Amino acid sequence: MKIAIYGYGNIGRGVETSVKFHKDIELLCVFTRRDPATIQTKSGVPVYSVNDILDYKDKIDVLIVCGGSATELLEMTPELTKNFNVVDSFDTHAKIPLHFATVDKVAKESGHVALIAGGWDPGLFSVNRLYASAVLPEGKDYTFWGKGVSQGHSNVIKTIDGVLDACQYTVPIEEAVEAVRTGKMPELTARQRHRRECFVVVTESADKTKIENEIRTMPNYFADYDTTVTFVTAEEFRKNYSEFSHGGMVIRTGKTSEKTHTIEYRLTLDSNPEFTSSALLALARAVNKKYVRGEYGCITMFDIAPADLSPLSDDELRAKIL
Amino acid sequence: MKIAIYGYGNIGRGVETSVKFHKDIELLCVFTRRDPATIQTKSGVPVYSVNDILDYKDKIDVLIVCGGSATELLEMTPELTKNFNVVDSFDTHAKIPLHFATVDKVAKESGHVALIAGGWDPGLFSVNRLYASAVLPEGKDYTFWGKGVSQGHSNVIKTIDGVLDACQYTVPIEEAVEAVRTGKMPELTARQRHRRECFVVVTESADKTKIENEIRTMPNYFADYDTTVTFVTAEEFRKNYSEFSHGGMVIRTGKTSEKTHTIEYRLTLDSNPEFTSSALLALARAVNKKYVRGEYGCITMFDIAPADLSPLSDDELRAKIL
Repeated sequence: MKIAIYGYGNIGRGVETSVKFHKDIELLCVFTRRDPATIQTKSGVPVYSVNDILDYKDKIDVLIVCGGSATELLEMTPELTKNFNVVDSFDTHAKIPLHFATVDKVAKESGHVALIAGGWDPGLFSVNRLYASAVLPEGKDYTFWGKGVSQGHSNVIKTIDGVLDACQYTVPIEEAVEAVRTGKMPELTARQRHRRECFVVVTESADKTKIENEIRTMPNYFADYDTTVTFVTAEEFRKNYSEFSHGGMVIRTGKTSEKTHTIEYRLTLDSNPEFTSSALLALARAVNKKYVRGEYGCITMFDIAPADLSPLSDDELRAKIL
Repeated sequence: MKIAIYGYGNIGRGVETSVKFHKDIELLCVFTRRDPATIQTKSGVPVYSVNDILDYKDKIDVLIVCGGSATELLEMTPELTKNFNVVDSFDTHAKIPLHFATVDKVAKESGHVALIAGGWDPGLFSVNRLYASAVLPEGKDYTFWGKGVSQGHSNVIKTIDGVLDACQYTVPIEEAVEAVRTGKMPELTARQRHRRECFVVVTESADKTKIENEIRTMPNYFADYDTTVTFVTAEEFRKNYSEFSHGGMVIRTGKTSEKTHTIEYRLTLDSNPEFTSSALLALARAVNKKYVRGEYGCITMFDIAPADLSPLSDDELRAKIL
């Protein structure tokens, strides 16, 4: 099957990198909104302008939509679904029902398959929450993120006057994880579950005390957490705080009688964009299988039977993996 | 939806116990090969003879086939699929393709949905192996079992002359688990991954040295492992070694470039039969949904889209769990 990348940012480059291990998938090209002449891909695949995308309509089985932000995907994915099967990694949980409705309408009209909200959260974590709650209906689940960079939290710090750059790590609190594993189903506040570590580069004349205070008291983002602010130089920042590592875990504990059970799913990722991209490729495979079978409409990972994610046949899967 | 239990052993009783938390599922009755008059169910649901089962054909949406051993299921599941939608927990990995072929033929002829090999391994562990290998094709996965009782290993000890009772715990070796988590994809022998602890009750006149030697050198079962044998009294055995706790983990480490990622799925179960039964109930729900949609044939957990496992609607799942 043949895919193309729409948008050459972190996720787009991740797709380009990880596709070489998906032997059944060929990357055809990259589409960009920038001037294609200014972009040299790592793998050498050609770069075309998004304005020419319809010329490739019949050559592409699935388009991986790598919009730079969730806002962009709200418009981009439905538009592209008019002419392509698509996969996106839309990650604003609260807006998923809205995005689904918009994309579903277009996909049903155009006869395409569009997978939204692929990746690990939403994505693999969601799938694990679903399996765990279906198998243990009497229980409670907990999601921990990190240690890893939250782009949203980093960006909001950058909007503060005097801040040149910022990086925010979300860190799960080990005591909370341990409390959950006891099976006692504790009620945990946001502060008890995660802490936030901020590394900030400021201008020479900046008032550090004021900036630190502004970060730590910011509602929604930081006020409900134990937040530490560390000021670093631009040099230190570049060297130490531009990582892509991330991860987290979903734990559900539940009962079947007085007996308690724990289901734990954990990801430890060297590179969040590369892992997410590799997951999107497995989803592209499933989208293509569904399209070939004549299915259409918007779907999420909840609608994909696991077998559709694999390049192996059903017989091979039952013999080797079941 | 209405279910019935076929076979009132550990799994059958587990279904009876855990069904109360699956609010959308009603347990109608139990079928037994014994004299129904000799069985009093814990919940008070009626017990009928397997000979009368066809009288209930139109009242039961899904039959949970709780055969006492994998051998029984090879005959029982296809026979019952002639008249019912069924779920079984067939767990002899090597014979799954054979069992699938037999059941699939009957299910397609009779127009029923038959799920085989449900539970956690085969089952949830298999599903996690599939997701992990689809998302990280360049990698290696490892399955660890325990600490928990292996029925097969316990039974084989009981066949030795002079042995009255036996219980064998499979124990994962922590160093191996840690080595896997490093992401270096070590090659591990059976001995490096698990050890085996046997607790054995013998007759007064038994030759303990001979029995211990016979266990530890037994091919396939024990010779390839570090095996300890502890002799205990019948009283100690009853008190300490009749547990149902079990668990284990599936770990895959893989690369997308020089970057390494780890996916870890872990179960810690107070009661293996109760957890397995609760999983079978989620599978029964999916089987019923497929049947209502007009699907038929033999399936495994690989063929079930996660959404079908849940009592929630697709809209609710996207809004609450995705």
